[in-house]
Amino acid sequence: MAKRILLGDPLATTNADEHLLPKRMALPIFASDALSSVAYGPQEMLMILLTGGLAFLAFSPWIAAAVVLLLFVIVLSYRQLIKAYPSGGGDYEVARKNLGEVPGVVVAAALLVDYVLTVSVSVASGVDNLISALPFLNNVRVELAVAFVVLIVIVNLRGVREASRAFAIPTYVFIGSVLVMIVTGLVRIALGHPPVAESAQYAVHSQSITQAAVILLILRAFSSGCSALTGIEAVSNGVQAFRKPKIRNAQTTLALMGTIAIVLFAGLTTLALVSGVHYAENPCTELIGWNCNNPQPSLMAQVAAATFGMNSIPFFIIQAATAVVLLLAANTAFNGFPLLGAVLARDGYAPKSLNTRGDRLVYSNGMIILGIVAIGVLVIYQANLTNLIQLYIIGVFVSFTLGQCGMIRHWIRGLRELKAMPADERRTRENRQTAFGNRKGLVINSVGATMTIIVLIIVTITKFTHGAWLVFIMIPLLSFLMMGVYRYYRDVEHEIRMDDTIHFGSSGDIAIVLVNKLQKPVVKAIDYALAAQHQEAFALHVAVSPEDAEHVEKEWAEHDIPMQLVTIASPFRSYAAPVIKFIEHYREKHGPSVVTVYLPQYIVGHWWETILHNRRSRRIAQQLMLVHGVTITLVPWLLDSSELVYGRRSRPLPGQERAGRPYSPEQDQVAEKYVNETAQEAK
Amino acid sequence: MAKRILLGDPLATTNADEHLLPKRMALPIFASDALSSVAYGPQEMLMILLTGGLAFLAFSPWIAAAVVLLLFVIVLSYRQLIKAYPSGGGDYEVARKNLGEVPGVVVAAALLVDYVLTVSVSVASGVDNLISALPFLNNVRVELAVAFVVLIVIVNLRGVREASRAFAIPTYVFIGSVLVMIVTGLVRIALGHPPVAESAQYAVHSQSITQAAVILLILRAFSSGCSALTGIEAVSNGVQAFRKPKIRNAQTTLALMGTIAIVLFAGLTTLALVSGVHYAENPCTELIGWNCNNPQPSLMAQVAAATFGMNSIPFFIIQAATAVVLLLAANTAFNGFPLLGAVLARDGYAPKSLNTRGDRLVYSNGMIILGIVAIGVLVIYQANLTNLIQLYIIGVFVSFTLGQCGMIRHWIRGLRELKAMPADERRTRENRQTAFGNRKGLVINSVGATMTIIVLIIVTITKFTHGAWLVFIMIPLLSFLMMGVYRYYRDVEHEIRMDDTIHFGSSGDIAIVLVNKLQKPVVKAIDYALAAQHQEAFALHVAVSPEDAEHVEKEWAEHDIPMQLVTIASPFRSYAAPVIKFIEHYREKHGPSVVTVYLPQYIVGHWWETILHNRRSRRIAQQLMLVHGVTITLVPWLLDSSELVYGRRSRPLPGQERAGRPYSPEQDQVAEKYVNETAQEAK
Repeated sequence: MAKRILLGDPLATTNADEHLLPKRMALPIFASDALSSVAYGPQEMLMILLTGGLAFLAFSPWIAAAVVLLLFVIVLSYRQLIKAYPSGGGDYEVARKNLGEVPGVVVAAALLVDYVLTVSVSVASGVDNLISALPFLNNVRVELAVAFVVLIVIVNLRGVREASRAFAIPTYVFIGSVLVMIVTGLVRIALGHPPVAESAQYAVHSQSITQAAVILLILRAFSSGCSALTGIEAVSNGVQAFRKPKIRNAQTTLALMGTIAIVLFAGLTTLALVSGVHYAENPCTELIGWNCNNPQPSLMAQVAAATFGMNSIPFFIIQAATAVVLLLAANTAFNGFPLLGAVLARDGYAPKSLNTRGDRLVYSNGMIILGIVAIGVLVIYQANLTNLIQLYIIGVFVSFTLGQCGMIRHWIRGLRELKAMPADERRTRENRQTAFGNRKGLVINSVGATMTIIVLIIVTITKFTHGAWLVFIMIPLLSFLMMGVYRYYRDVEHEIRMDDTIHFGSSGDIAIVLVNKLQKPVVKAIDYALAAQHQEAFALHVAVSPEDAEHVEKEWAEHDIPMQLVTIASPFRSYAAPVIKFIEHYREKHGPSVVTVYLPQYIVGHWWETILHNRRSRRIAQQLMLVHGVTITLVPWLLDSSELVYGRRSRPLPGQERAGRPYSPEQDQVAEKYVNETAQEAK
Repeated sequence: MAKRILLGDPLATTNADEHLLPKRMALPIFASDALSSVAYGPQEMLMILLTGGLAFLAFSPWIAAAVVLLLFVIVLSYRQLIKAYPSGGGDYEVARKNLGEVPGVVVAAALLVDYVLTVSVSVASGVDNLISALPFLNNVRVELAVAFVVLIVIVNLRGVREASRAFAIPTYVFIGSVLVMIVTGLVRIALGHPPVAESAQYAVHSQSITQAAVILLILRAFSSGCSALTGIEAVSNGVQAFRKPKIRNAQTTLALMGTIAIVLFAGLTTLALVSGVHYAENPCTELIGWNCNNPQPSLMAQVAAATFGMNSIPFFIIQAATAVVLLLAANTAFNGFPLLGAVLARDGYAPKSLNTRGDRLVYSNGMIILGIVAIGVLVIYQANLTNLIQLYIIGVFVSFTLGQCGMIRHWIRGLRELKAMPADERRTRENRQTAFGNRKGLVINSVGATMTIIVLIIVTITKFTHGAWLVFIMIPLLSFLMMGVYRYYRDVEHEIRMDDTIHFGSSGDIAIVLVNKLQKPVVKAIDYALAAQHQEAFALHVAVSPEDAEHVEKEWAEHDIPMQLVTIASPFRSYAAPVIKFIEHYREKHGPSVVTVYLPQYIVGHWWETILHNRRSRRIAQQLMLVHGVTITLVPWLLDSSELVYGRRSRPLPGQERAGRPYSPEQDQVAEKYVNETAQEAK
């Protein structure tokens, strides 16, 4: 019931098509990740530069330019990838098909790690921006972050369509309001009274710094700035969620997204520099005159306050839109992670349960796993954005790089195939166009690959000792796990495959009804065992004490039960072992036989009831199932409490009517037709 | 395997007697709680007084005297309780038998809460004392505390005997070394150069304080000092663990324990006052000149350092013994909690699984629950002793008070019974002795009840707003839960009890083998279904797509399976619903019948494999079991991996030998005898 209220009604498979996204809806869903990164990208870049002293801010236009160039190249590269691999596997599929199993799995592992970090970083930054506007929330930072992740999980478990609808407006508000802010700021600069940030008044401790350290600092600032690039790959993983023509629509959305991201990133960095925002890693020690008890407002908040005035209405609109869009970015990961999980499960690299759609046509298990892991990361890092950023984007650049390399091979193979054709066929208009496309792709992706490799090296060098080593452990670990899962499934598949050794002809058929106390559930089991007309049937009582045995035997006689009772003693309080002994003993005397053990099983109405029932019967079943030639027959006994939940009682006792009442959840109406048809054929 | 190494070999029920404790072993086990409380009792008492200013320390001898008096009275009272109720139910049993169900349950709830807090407080204090000797451990305070709880759980899961042996020595070392310290200190005072504590040099911020606040402060100090009383009830809950004569031995142990506790408490308080220990709640703000970065050494450590010199060998011995004995005190709770849990389970107030002895004859479930909850409390309170002490001893005094009240009614009833006798019989020597004993008990327990009621009121007033309100929520909550559990068990028992409505005679017997893909486990299920010779048997394939159906039907024909295949379509990806429809349809045509559904079930070797197998078959079973007249037959398929763990494969395929190999864990040797005898009678 609670599930229904939270998640809505179940949906049929055939409804899947209606959930496809038009461009105006796809943009907010897929772009929120890429766009929201401008909320922390410039901030972290300027912050790193400031650790060297005020003078280093002079490098920032150049670093920002490098980031913008990289963004441009990556958008171009991904447009090629979408065209070539529209199935939604993204970098994983490209690397797997072109470079082989190991690179594919590594890309998958890197992406999984980065999805988790996307959620953590975005939520942490969202909470930061919220606290910038409402500082009194600073004491519940971690709790807020966790609450937001839980909220996002619930929204996503409802399905992609509703998610999209609720998410479109704030993204557009964010884009619009930040653009207005940038324009306003630029106009004020042009008019000669530029905005001044509140933190411009604080002097910065300057440090003497070696030349090598200068280079490292600049590279670190670049690495942190690159966090603005994350999320671009989201579109390539979600091509199948677009309306037709899928490829064209996805490419357009990607180009639009890239343009907006570049404008916002450049504009925001400019305004921050002009207004003199001093955002410090440790404001307490770096900024002279800073009051240590206050939380430091985010760069976005400082720029907004400088442009529109602190606590003005536009300030609150921008902070609210920023916080919300960052939460939507976390939401992007909840689209991507379960989808990738399902693809991996389909390919045998992840548990099959990740490929099971829930009631609402979403891959619920993947969402729940992502939510739990992201909450864990947020709690461990206390929702500290600067520490989280250190782990971030490594996974993204691993997958960028391998994806680009895969694309290079893809185009080269395409060109080779064309070359192998006879000369006249090669010169058809169509094939010449293909060759041109291949060459164009090759050039673009080669440039992309070169740049992403360089950036990956820079990012690794500058972040490794700042916490990123953890990611370098996690990615190989996950890769090994995934390959292990693949091998496991392969082995099991091999083990249970049909072969020539199978043949039929088991014989012998005895039934054993396990009796603990003589109660109604046991009577039901005895009745069913009698109805099944086994060759032999006993009731078996395992007695832990002689009084116990006597009591059951007396009751047996009193109620005149029409089945023979055998009592065996168990001085060690174990139930399964004596039963197994008995079965062996019986077989020694009467030859091999299939043994059916009847076990009454309580069906309860509430999860907490399972705590109250001793799980002895389940433990017995588990042990007996290890004995060859034994099957376990569970005879359900529906407790009264189950009536509340399932709407039926177990009341009709053995021997009474059991023709069965109709079972009809709504979803059965279609199934009924098929069943009736096929069942009639059967008889 | 890992379980065996950690816990040792399983033990038989008949071994239980050998695990009884001689007095010299019982003392360390039951006394460590009561004795170790002197490690924090005096400290917390003096700390509260110091918050008022140095002058308040002058009250401490009087408060200490009140605590000692209370200790004396409670020991006397419990000697009476042990005599009257030696079964080990302690206050719970007394309250339940004399005052009724609700007081009994409240006592049980109060004790459960306090067991948890005993673990938390003792471990927190133990870690404090460890850090006092090794200050560099201050950074891993919480981690250390959690690690210790885990260690104690593992030791206890091995069983009570080994626990006792490992625990006797440190308790005696603790008693001995603290006594030596007290004597040394007193001798130094007598010789005219008393020890001086390091913290004596720090002046204390004095506060002006109202008269009402003075009284409240003194009462708070008394409340905190009363934490030295905890653990006295442990003996009364463990009488059955003593060797014969149980009552006498338990009483002697209790008296001995009380005497030692009084000597240690008084001696330690005296030394702390003489040596001028200034132990502050917030050393940073209260002590003038204190370096805020250092952890504050415990009172025990300061006294030891003053008496023997900082970092001397006796100092380290005392700190080590204190830390260890505090951990042993936590261990006391691991004896008491599971025992009380088992008693509650036997009486129907707690889940039955708490009354199940594990491999090593201990109530493993109770121990694991206690460990988890205590770790939770330690993490939430960051192992802060002063905060934890605020919650502590309320439960103890609730159970003290109700226990004493129960004892008063017990003795009055005894006297009434004697009065009801004829005059001559009443005057026999024996009955006059009984009357004397009853009167003596009545006086002692009346004094005890009066004092504990007063202390309970003081404790409630002084602690409620300092965090203890949580305990006042938990105790009623737990009580309600336990009464709910009781009612639940009563209702279920009533529901399944044998009555006149039962009769036999179910008829009709069809078997359905569910087929997903044609693989060996399914073939095994088909073979067994054939062997059971049901009246009718089908194989049923639920097809989610037409191609799927075609594929299975083709394979079916190829392998020439000797059972009819029925295919039904399921457009909603559900498996159970179409099967249920089919069953209904069949019954409509052919009349009521018992339906046996065969489901292959994988048996895996490692816990993680269950993650990799889709739990579809379990979900189907759960849904089918809700249909009346349906039983589920699980046909086990042992995967190769299970061979590693259980030492057998599922290899012999259907139709091959299945006489069964011998199953023989060591514990079976005795069981075998019984089985052979009884099985021969059976045939």
